[in-house]
Amino acid sequence: MHREIPVTSLQRLPVYLNYLKSLGRTDGNISSGAIARALGMGEVLVRKDLAYTPAHGRARTGYNCGELIAAIEEYLGCNRVLPAVLFGAGALGRALLSYGGFKNYGIELVAAFDCCEEKTGATVGGCTVYPYAAAREVIGRTGARLAVICVPADVAQEVCDTLVECGIAAVLNFAPVLLKVPEGVNVRNIDMAANLAILASQI
Amino acid sequence: MHREIPVTSLQRLPVYLNYLKSLGRTDGNISSGAIARALGMGEVLVRKDLAYTPAHGRARTGYNCGELIAAIEEYLGCNRVLPAVLFGAGALGRALLSYGGFKNYGIELVAAFDCCEEKTGATVGGCTVYPYAAAREVIGRTGARLAVICVPADVAQEVCDTLVECGIAAVLNFAPVLLKVPEGVNVRNIDMAANLAILASQI
Repeated sequence: MHREIPVTSLQRLPVYLNYLKSLGRTDGNISSGAIARALGMGEVLVRKDLAYTPAHGRARTGYNCGELIAAIEEYLGCNRVLPAVLFGAGALGRALLSYGGFKNYGIELVAAFDCCEEKTGATVGGCTVYPYAAAREVIGRTGARLAVICVPADVAQEVCDTLVECGIAAVLNFAPVLLKVPEGVNVRNIDMAANLAILASQI
Repeated sequence: MHREIPVTSLQRLPVYLNYLKSLGRTDGNISSGAIARALGMGEVLVRKDLAYTPAHGRARTGYNCGELIAAIEEYLGCNRVLPAVLFGAGALGRALLSYGGFKNYGIELVAAFDCCEEKTGATVGGCTVYPYAAAREVIGRTGARLAVICVPADVAQEVCDTLVECGIAAVLNFAPVLLKVPEGVNVRNIDMAANLAILASQI
C-alpha cells in the first residue's frame, strides 16, 4: 500500500473481494456500477475505493473479474503472511485471538503475552500465551514487527516501551491512553467507547 | 455535541479530563500549553480539541480549571446515562460487556442478547443476556436507542433489521459487513483487522 488509504475505504475492500469471489467466475468483466448495485452502495464510492488498488477499470467494459480479484488480494497482502503479537490476554485480548478477520489482510497473530501467571501456557485461538519475560525471544524468533495492546490503561505505556525495545514498529492500541513512542514507530488507537459516543451524539 | 467531532479528537477528551482531575484543583487557570506539555502532545492540537467543547480559553490566562472540567464533562455527556444494548454475547461481546470505558462518555450497556440458549440467563459485566425473542420488550423497557452488534458476519444484517424494527437509531457494528439501514439510522463500523492492516502497510 503506497498511497495512504482511509480506514473506511480499506475495510470495504474485503467486502468487494468476498462479493467478487462469490460470483464464482474469473473471466468476463464487471462494472463498478454492478458492484455498487449488488452491495447497495454508491458507484462513485466503489470506483474511488478500487482506485487505491492496482486494478485498472476501463470505460464501458469495467474491470476484468480475475484481474480485479488479484489486484485487491495483492493490495491487501493476502498472498503473504505478516506475523503480529498481542499483549494482554484478558477478555478483549482473548476475543481478538479467536477473531478470524485478520487473515483477510494477510496478518496472523502468532503469539500472545500476559503478566498473569495463571494465563500463561494456555493456547487461545491457536496462539500460546507467554509470560512477559519471553517477549524479546519470541518476538525475535517470529520476526513480528506488529503488535496489539489490550492491557489495562495504567500499564499500557510500560508495555509499549518494552515492545519498542523488542523491535516492534507498529502498535494497534485498545487501551484508552495516548501512548508515547519514538519517531518511526506508528500507533493507531481504537477507542470503542468513543465510537459509541459519536453515535450517541447523533441520535 | 453539535459540531461533528472527529473520533480522534473525541477520544482525547477523556484523557484531558483525567489529567485535569488528577491535578486535584478546580480553582486557578491552566493553559493549553501546560496540558500539551504534561501529555506530550502538540499545543495546537489540544486547543483544537478543546474548541469542540463549550470551554472558553482566554489569551494569556488559559482556561479556568473547574470550568474546563465541567465543559468537557458536559460535552461528553458524563452527567446523564444513555442506555445501550448489545447483540452477540460471544468472546468480543463479553469483552465489551466487561469493559469499563463506556461510562467515560455517559453510556451504559443495560442488556445483552444472544441466540444461543446456553448463553441466555447469564450475567456478564452486570448485564443479563436475554434471548432474541425478548428484544422488543427489553429495548422498549430500557428506552435504549443505541446498539452494539458483535454477532458473526452472516447474521449481522438480520440482527440489524430486528434492531431497527425495535426503534434503535444508532448501531456500532463490529461484524465485518456493510449493514444496510433505512434513512435516519446511523451506523459506525469498527473493523479491527482493517486498522491493523493500515499499520502493517506503514512498516
